[in-house]
Amino acid sequence: MIPHLFAVILAGGSGTRFWPASRKHRPKQLLPIGPTPDSLITATVRRIAPVCPAERTLIATGVHLLDATRALLSWLPASSFLGEPVPRNTAPCIAWASWEALRRDPDALVMVLPSDHYIADAAEFLSYVETACRVAAAGAIVTLGLKPTRPETGYGYIEAGAEREPGVCDVARFVEKPDRTSAEGYLASGRHFWNSGMFFFRASVLLDAVREHAPAIASGLELMARAGTDPERAEAFASFPSISIDYAVMEKAENLAVVPSHFAWSDLGSWQSAWELADKDEAGNAAPADAVLADARGNLVMDLRSAGGPRVIALAAVEGLCVIETDDALLVVPRERAQDVRKLVDALQARGRSDLL
Amino acid sequence: MIPHLFAVILAGGSGTRFWPASRKHRPKQLLPIGPTPDSLITATVRRIAPVCPAERTLIATGVHLLDATRALLSWLPASSFLGEPVPRNTAPCIAWASWEALRRDPDALVMVLPSDHYIADAAEFLSYVETACRVAAAGAIVTLGLKPTRPETGYGYIEAGAEREPGVCDVARFVEKPDRTSAEGYLASGRHFWNSGMFFFRASVLLDAVREHAPAIASGLELMARAGTDPERAEAFASFPSISIDYAVMEKAENLAVVPSHFAWSDLGSWQSAWELADKDEAGNAAPADAVLADARGNLVMDLRSAGGPRVIALAAVEGLCVIETDDALLVVPRERAQDVRKLVDALQARGRSDLL
Repeated sequence: MIPHLFAVILAGGSGTRFWPASRKHRPKQLLPIGPTPDSLITATVRRIAPVCPAERTLIATGVHLLDATRALLSWLPASSFLGEPVPRNTAPCIAWASWEALRRDPDALVMVLPSDHYIADAAEFLSYVETACRVAAAGAIVTLGLKPTRPETGYGYIEAGAEREPGVCDVARFVEKPDRTSAEGYLASGRHFWNSGMFFFRASVLLDAVREHAPAIASGLELMARAGTDPERAEAFASFPSISIDYAVMEKAENLAVVPSHFAWSDLGSWQSAWELADKDEAGNAAPADAVLADARGNLVMDLRSAGGPRVIALAAVEGLCVIETDDALLVVPRERAQDVRKLVDALQARGRSDLL
Repeated sequence: MIPHLFAVILAGGSGTRFWPASRKHRPKQLLPIGPTPDSLITATVRRIAPVCPAERTLIATGVHLLDATRALLSWLPASSFLGEPVPRNTAPCIAWASWEALRRDPDALVMVLPSDHYIADAAEFLSYVETACRVAAAGAIVTLGLKPTRPETGYGYIEAGAEREPGVCDVARFVEKPDRTSAEGYLASGRHFWNSGMFFFRASVLLDAVREHAPAIASGLELMARAGTDPERAEAFASFPSISIDYAVMEKAENLAVVPSHFAWSDLGSWQSAWELADKDEAGNAAPADAVLADARGNLVMDLRSAGGPRVIALAAVEGLCVIETDDALLVVPRERAQDVRKLVDALQARGRSDLL
């Protein structure tokens, strides 16, 4: 255990990129998308159990997801769950959770983690977490920076400055999603890291930074503190501006540090990533054992139906397809076009088929 | 009505090319594969109703298919159904049906038709039938030869000889499935026609030819005539050699005529043909009305499930795929590789999944 450490697990996501598996009321973090049978949020909470006990693990999620989320994390106490009445991006919810942690422990140290990422090796991950916590306990706002493995244009980057100590650097600056040329430069530089969205700070340090750089959020927190009933809390929460922690605080704060990290990680951004992480046969197919494949290569086949009888999925002469079945939908899309799932979701919305979203 | 005409509908097929829709006990002719909601055999029987009454329409099918076939042709009398105890290809069953027709009418004229082909225009088709019947009534064995529309290497051809009368030629010879170069020559020649498998003859003429060219079949018929019980009939039928009518009789018989024909026809050889005949949207997709398509072109989508709840099929960024759903199977195969369905059927067989065949 790390003394005074609270985990704040951000579980408000409602992505559409894993449709038809993910739905409004069953977003990605509640699904077993990775190579293990656990849901992503369950894996996230189990991963940090060695350093953070259940009663200091806070789950920030939308009120509409509270029941489903609690069901997957049944060993956490009721006080672990913070229900956001309306979505307000990450800054208000991190500020609120930090305020809650500070209320429970004046020396609270906070670790903010996404609930829907994949990390292969928990022990390796926790060694970076321990470094980050040590630096945060001394007053810095710390982020884990992931060593890039490709010129990714879909992530933000952190540029490292001077080395503070072995394995810890100052943050020179946060960099928005780059173009391809910049991304290639970052990959080569050795000084640029993917912004993992994992932050570590003393609750008091974060709240000071919020008061200085995001006064509207600080005002919202005061309203939250005065609210005595659920409707009052909902009203107070709605008063928060919708803004990310990066924009609201990180890009302006001082004493920022980055811990360059290189553990096996994926943000599981699409069915393509699910295929990358899945167990595959020698032809690159990830498919149920009873699937029948003839001349099929590199496909991702998932039968996620809960009802209906047994079914065989048969693929012949196809390459690089995702074939995903649920009780009420069947998706076929090339892996390389997995982001087009969004177009299908938009089309369903336009047809008034929100029952399928 | 055409006097003395009996129709013999060959309905013993057990093809695998429309798996998972077609099964051992539900072969292609029992399915509504074409653009109409009727099964192919129902459409075949209805098409000839203007020239051949129910009591002279004979359905030759496997005993294991009798019940399902009767259910689709409920207006035909019990005497219309000839159940083959074991499969013996087309020659024995055509000989048997002709013998049965002759028993009922000494002047019987027989028209042999496949049960699983698509013909767009019944009236146009029947005009060729009338010509063929007239020539057959005068003693010839007549076949409809279909004018080729592509250099098809999967069919047998009939080479026409001298013109007997306008629209009727002698048969110069039957030609086996040709190679590509020959097929291109046949397409250009104007004298070569696809062997439709539709034959017209006096029953007595066919049986004379059987006695002359296929004595083993003639012997089998004598055994059939003497058989008094079902087991005796089964034993007699099993004594037939397994051979096609083309090999056993047509390639050796005299007084053969061909009626060159050019009605819209398809043998519906694969899911590719089903797509060709289906109603399609402007992007060439044949799909259920509630399917959701984004950037999808030329796909065939069929939901043939009879159970389970409503389901949406969603395709993004795919072209030329067949996506076929039944209660217990899902098939994905490119249209141009539709013949690979056979590989899947073989794989299922090898795995002992005959429950799916």
